[in-house]
Amino acid sequence: MKVLVIGGYGFIGSHVSEELIRRGHYVRVYARRPPLFKTSAEWFFGDFHDSAKLAESLVGIDVVVHSLSSTVPATSASDPVSDIQKNLVGTVVLLQLMKEVGVGRLIYLSSGGTVYGNPLVSPVVESHPLNPISSYGAVKVAIEKFIGVSQHSWGVVPIIFRPSNPYGERQGHGGVQGLISTILSNALRAEPTCIYGDGSSVRDYIYVKDLAVLIANSVEVGGEGIYNAGSGRGFSVGEIISVIKKVTGLPVPAKYLPARDFDVKEVVLESGSAMSAFGWRPTTSLEHGVKCHFEWLKRFKSDAF
Amino acid sequence: MKVLVIGGYGFIGSHVSEELIRRGHYVRVYARRPPLFKTSAEWFFGDFHDSAKLAESLVGIDVVVHSLSSTVPATSASDPVSDIQKNLVGTVVLLQLMKEVGVGRLIYLSSGGTVYGNPLVSPVVESHPLNPISSYGAVKVAIEKFIGVSQHSWGVVPIIFRPSNPYGERQGHGGVQGLISTILSNALRAEPTCIYGDGSSVRDYIYVKDLAVLIANSVEVGGEGIYNAGSGRGFSVGEIISVIKKVTGLPVPAKYLPARDFDVKEVVLESGSAMSAFGWRPTTSLEHGVKCHFEWLKRFKSDAF
Repeated sequence: MKVLVIGGYGFIGSHVSEELIRRGHYVRVYARRPPLFKTSAEWFFGDFHDSAKLAESLVGIDVVVHSLSSTVPATSASDPVSDIQKNLVGTVVLLQLMKEVGVGRLIYLSSGGTVYGNPLVSPVVESHPLNPISSYGAVKVAIEKFIGVSQHSWGVVPIIFRPSNPYGERQGHGGVQGLISTILSNALRAEPTCIYGDGSSVRDYIYVKDLAVLIANSVEVGGEGIYNAGSGRGFSVGEIISVIKKVTGLPVPAKYLPARDFDVKEVVLESGSAMSAFGWRPTTSLEHGVKCHFEWLKRFKSDAF
Repeated sequence: MKVLVIGGYGFIGSHVSEELIRRGHYVRVYARRPPLFKTSAEWFFGDFHDSAKLAESLVGIDVVVHSLSSTVPATSASDPVSDIQKNLVGTVVLLQLMKEVGVGRLIYLSSGGTVYGNPLVSPVVESHPLNPISSYGAVKVAIEKFIGVSQHSWGVVPIIFRPSNPYGERQGHGGVQGLISTILSNALRAEPTCIYGDGSSVRDYIYVKDLAVLIANSVEVGGEGIYNAGSGRGFSVGEIISVIKKVTGLPVPAKYLPARDFDVKEVVLESGSAMSAFGWRPTTSLEHGVKCHFEWLKRFKSDAF
């Protein structure tokens, strides 16, 4: 299959690209800059908003995997208009270009951690009302709705994944994205991590390579629908800190700050639909995933600094 | 109460302004140009995107009624990006300005005819899933979600109305907005109306002055929530044509064209929640409303041409 991975340089997109290449698919990556890591993908360099370049990258493609997001909840909250401009408008233009070029399948990475808001039940299923409490989540909902409009109006065949909290190799570790990544990075430098709230908030963590396998399966299986993509298990911040202490053998100092209004209290995803639709199961334990993440981070830090 | 009506020059906004003035409220209207009709409101002229002007118009206001939309389903479908830029971004900026200036209450006019998509049940209640099939509806959903984020993050107190198909005096009659208005206008000129589909599609029509009473009631009653605002009765296009023939005594020629992909087949709204929350009931029969609309249109046409 010929697959265009938009954001294929990014944290999730790069793992998806590698998994697809490993399975023998032809992968074209659309990204802003050349990779730090080597892959055998075809590379298209361009901004997401360069519609001429983006249209060109779509020619001859069977499936688009759209894993690009230029924001995280914290940056979206401080500038929601920019989040709308970059991610919502960009995706609506992508849909128009797919129609023009004649590319019929889209796999989109939404956000299981933000579209539901504070869930009324746990674990949360896909039919749960969408009541985001962050602008990041509101933009994701808007993108899902525009994909639905294209599905109705010109027949794009979309698979929308709502991943829980992915972690693992290549996640940003600057402190705005990913609790596990941030704690690991700080622990390596013997610096404290800022924890928003009292440490009781619960998330469903999914190892990025497990998520990449799910996305690659969905490229091959096809179909359409909206699917949660999580481990189905919740861990509190305190439990994550314990696991990281155990795996790394390092002290993990934490500095507790007031909770942020855009963070939900608990999200654990029921992902049975994705499991049955795509013959998938997350197989990596939290301990093992954190270990892989930590080993990579140590190598990365020693290479980069 | 001091009320800012954004879009107060428009079809719905002008009736809301008049109803509020009639009840003795202080009304400030934010609009792009001076009115064709006289009211005793205070007028602020500016573009919705002129944030300095918009901020100025918010000073001293208790409640904002946001009834502005620069698109209708047909124009949104041909240019969804512009709909996002004008209406979604504009409303997100409005919310930011309300927070800054310290205006806490917002009444927003969403769209009961488009946010649900093709409803799974009839009449449709507010908790029905939001599956818009038009970009117009997707933008309205996105705006509702961003209002929800502001409600959570800084405590705006919003009432969101999802009106069915409003009709009545001052509705545009250029053929893109409002079936009743378009048919009446064409009938006066003895021209055929283009009907998309076979004439069986069903809508819930609400007389604009009934809707204005509901909105004025909500200004006075307060509270927060999302409410359908319709008559609860469905009429097919064919039935509307019959009523118009009867009321006007004119022939009503129609030209049937293929259905448009962004039009839903049937929407009738269950509006019991709005009735109990705001002590409201639509009181104008379709025949009477069409008669008022027709009499106005005859006067307007004879004035303007």
